[in-house]
Amino acid sequence: MSGATRDECDEFDLIAQFFAPLAQAYPGALGLGDDAALMDVPVGQQLVLTMDSMVAGVHFFADDPADLIARKLIRVNLSDLAAKGAQPFAIMLSAAFPGDVGMDWLRRFADGLAQDCGAYGLALIGGDTVSTPGPLTLTVTAFGRVGQGQAILRSRAKDGDVVYMTGTVGDAALGLLSRQGRFPLLPAHLVESLTQRYLLPQPRVQLGLGLVGLAHAAMDVSDGLVQDLGHLCRQSGLGAVIHAQDLPLSEAAGHLLADDPALLSDVLSGGDDYEIVFTAPVEHADKIAGLADDAGTRVTAIGRIRAQSGVVVQDGQGRPLDLARTGWRHFSDTRGK
Amino acid sequence: MSGATRDECDEFDLIAQFFAPLAQAYPGALGLGDDAALMDVPVGQQLVLTMDSMVAGVHFFADDPADLIARKLIRVNLSDLAAKGAQPFAIMLSAAFPGDVGMDWLRRFADGLAQDCGAYGLALIGGDTVSTPGPLTLTVTAFGRVGQGQAILRSRAKDGDVVYMTGTVGDAALGLLSRQGRFPLLPAHLVESLTQRYLLPQPRVQLGLGLVGLAHAAMDVSDGLVQDLGHLCRQSGLGAVIHAQDLPLSEAAGHLLADDPALLSDVLSGGDDYEIVFTAPVEHADKIAGLADDAGTRVTAIGRIRAQSGVVVQDGQGRPLDLARTGWRHFSDTRGK
Repeated sequence: MSGATRDECDEFDLIAQFFAPLAQAYPGALGLGDDAALMDVPVGQQLVLTMDSMVAGVHFFADDPADLIARKLIRVNLSDLAAKGAQPFAIMLSAAFPGDVGMDWLRRFADGLAQDCGAYGLALIGGDTVSTPGPLTLTVTAFGRVGQGQAILRSRAKDGDVVYMTGTVGDAALGLLSRQGRFPLLPAHLVESLTQRYLLPQPRVQLGLGLVGLAHAAMDVSDGLVQDLGHLCRQSGLGAVIHAQDLPLSEAAGHLLADDPALLSDVLSGGDDYEIVFTAPVEHADKIAGLADDAGTRVTAIGRIRAQSGVVVQDGQGRPLDLARTGWRHFSDTRGK
Repeated sequence: MSGATRDECDEFDLIAQFFAPLAQAYPGALGLGDDAALMDVPVGQQLVLTMDSMVAGVHFFADDPADLIARKLIRVNLSDLAAKGAQPFAIMLSAAFPGDVGMDWLRRFADGLAQDCGAYGLALIGGDTVSTPGPLTLTVTAFGRVGQGQAILRSRAKDGDVVYMTGTVGDAALGLLSRQGRFPLLPAHLVESLTQRYLLPQPRVQLGLGLVGLAHAAMDVSDGLVQDLGHLCRQSGLGAVIHAQDLPLSEAAGHLLADDPALLSDVLSGGDDYEIVFTAPVEHADKIAGLADDAGTRVTAIGRIRAQSGVVVQDGQGRPLDLARTGWRHFSDTRGK
């Protein structure tokens, strides 16, 4: 964090200079110049709302590039909306800035916000900026729209549904281990691909929109596949079997698991995937394959929903794997540095 | 912060035990068990949205009672909605908890949330809980409703409008100075009244609802009357004259100002009033007086809107007062301890 100090820039200048331009396209944002924002919701639509916070040293490294911090912040929220089948359209941002955040850092942070607001069609419609004696702490409330009663919930999985997952599993967790020096021999291009997955999630917005009417249940995978699928199963009053050999792995993850199969535990329980796990009846398989093609998103069948509760991961011989930990539980662990 | 450690209570237990009960009345909250909340907005209504953060050591003292921290957090957000004439109905909460927050503290915090959710008819519909190595950092996004096009904006003041203010001015700022030991001779009951005003704002929800159709412009006074009225005037392309002798003072503030008139600067520029400053045409004076009676909220005419830009505070002889500072600017100052 370098460059001009922030002494000459107070809250109001900051909002006017960096944030108000991102509100221009949304009249209800009132130019970020009022106490509150106004929002109209079209008849026949519901709002879908999510809120996620990120803390420096817990959810990202304080010296990560400021634009990537901003973009990850937006994307972890969009991932939640994508899992509901919602079309995102607005965010609110609250930022607690430590004293060493300078103008250059803020400019880059705002650049990252602008980039992803542009990419995903979002307006910044309000929020708050405060100072903190602690680490940079960022909170976004994200707003999406979905047709009345069309949102895909966690709680609607049905016995016999196929369990699908988007993208690949475990890359962000391996990317974090890589940053911590665990894989000194991993080729540079694979290190880079894992690092990118850690820094910049890819929310599956387009795919999520297409799942409306196809998927019975869906959720965002952010705390580890096994744990998150466990939530979906519990909410649905069911369980699931996952086939380890069917898990979608990146080249880097495949490379590392070939060397050290015990890393499967990290792959299945690490956080920050920001993929969607969803369930759908077998007869939608072709439609789902077509949707995956249209969205340019890999979608893999990884198992089945069953009546017996709990999530079991089986090896190629149908034997249950014993996973050391089932997932990331934010509140009692710490992550990052 | 004392009691049982939090080791046995992870994020999911925490939500289930303390927060999910506050979501029960709102089906779209999905029991806080999904990625997101769903919200319907009645036809003919607009949402009014605000988001405010509070950081321990900046916006409150870390050892303030946990229930009062929770209630202040809700109320500072409701004050923004009140200033728009909106009916509040829901909040989302993101909390970054430091490691020393124990179960007793959380229980008391949740009690405070429950108390004010009950008092103001709010559901807790979503949010996030994370851990932080820094100070307790809390963010609320609050949702209100208003008839289409009925929200009272900052930008609609008209030349000649009467400027009104709810409640009394400067008590919270004096309450903070009192806590810092500035007024050792102040009688105990006055110390207590100032302290309460600092700890527990009174959002003017009912009065705000009644201002729809009467007030031209309104805003929440949270960063000091002169500064905040300045924002309203700037947004309206106008200015204002305030008459110092008309300012509504509490018994405690009157007592302190009689001893030390220089405190007027703190009264007019200190933060945390959470009153509403609004403007209305002269001919609505009687209706506004009736509304104040109905709401049980003191409302005082303190000046007039005029074409000349800027906010001038005049003494009894019409001379402009020179105020050392015009308001609290969150981003470059620090407050509290």
